[in-house]
Amino acid sequence: MTIHYPNGQHPKQSYHANRDLPTPHQSIYAKRGMSLEDEINDSNKYYLSRHAAVIYKKPTPIQLVKVDYPKRSAAVIKEAYFRRPSTTDYNGIYKGYYIDFDAKETRNKRYFPLKNFHEHQVRHMRECVSQGGICFAFIKFTELELVYLLPASILFRYWDEMINGGRKSILLTDIQREGFEVKYQLNPRLPYLQAVDQIIAAKNKGVYHVE
Amino acid sequence: MTIHYPNGQHPKQSYHANRDLPTPHQSIYAKRGMSLEDEINDSNKYYLSRHAAVIYKKPTPIQLVKVDYPKRSAAVIKEAYFRRPSTTDYNGIYKGYYIDFDAKETRNKRYFPLKNFHEHQVRHMRECVSQGGICFAFIKFTELELVYLLPASILFRYWDEMINGGRKSILLTDIQREGFEVKYQLNPRLPYLQAVDQIIAAKNKGVYHVE
Repeated sequence: MTIHYPNGQHPKQSYHANRDLPTPHQSIYAKRGMSLEDEINDSNKYYLSRHAAVIYKKPTPIQLVKVDYPKRSAAVIKEAYFRRPSTTDYNGIYKGYYIDFDAKETRNKRYFPLKNFHEHQVRHMRECVSQGGICFAFIKFTELELVYLLPASILFRYWDEMINGGRKSILLTDIQREGFEVKYQLNPRLPYLQAVDQIIAAKNKGVYHVE
Repeated sequence: MTIHYPNGQHPKQSYHANRDLPTPHQSIYAKRGMSLEDEINDSNKYYLSRHAAVIYKKPTPIQLVKVDYPKRSAAVIKEAYFRRPSTTDYNGIYKGYYIDFDAKETRNKRYFPLKNFHEHQVRHMRECVSQGGICFAFIKFTELELVYLLPASILFRYWDEMINGGRKSILLTDIQREGFEVKYQLNPRLPYLQAVDQIIAAKNKGVYHVE
């Protein structure tokens, strides 16, 4: 049914009215409130069930201070603190390759701030790359719902530029040029192994050679 | 100085007298009270410092129930429980190979009880092996101070035999025949990458081919 408005125009607020409704993209794929971590874990479960890859998020390290061992029931942690992880959050194996990455979200729409990474994570990735591992940053621009894998050696270059006084972020346009987009789909939600295949192919061509 | 005993024999209790003294082996290398986990973590630190391998123990997974966030200080975990890990405890990369293993100790002197492994750990190792990973059990006979790496495919064979009604343990003599001994030394305490090299060489010859 078409509503005929007195002045013959469609109401202009229709844009605003629709703005808070989920787009088909959002409602089907990227559920609002689902963190990048949840999305990656879901995808990893899917890949594991298909015997495509064995990749897990590592548990958060905890410093235990007080643990009670009640009789006939499970041990209860009564006091503990979060510790800073020494490595990245995710690792595993895919087609014989050691896979290692960290996942980071930003609400920024134009660039990814490098302060999202910690120096020890970058150092860890350098060690893994030098052993022949496939390492990357899994970056999500939450407001844009855009997800990219950025190969570690590219990250290292921007990181080193920052250390030497350069900019403290990577422009989205640079990530689009040097990274690999992961497009949301139904299952797995984030089919990122396709992007990993591209990183492996580039690595085997010597593209990411690090001195 | 030789003591001449009245009946011309050496005292039989000398064996007992020496039994509780540390052998040079024990006092220098395998410090009493140091767990296999500590020994492996120490060795991994050494290997990392030499850029030989990047292998870490995963943190124990925790189910958080109550966390306090006091102002101006670190978050305090007030109630939490230990969760059963889905995977093995250690993984990482060495010479381009994905490495995955679990470490188990037994006080037994003749055999290693298979109940030390959980079904999900064996399943996890099967997935990793099928992706081309180097997986093994890191087994220590604490009373004998003997340490072996047992390739996962050998473990699977004994595991499957147990499932089919066979024996619930692996004899030490079988581990000695089918595994690779790791001999204590000063630094790294457990130079297990030498045994990993042997597993890699055997794997590349097709010895551990799993259907």
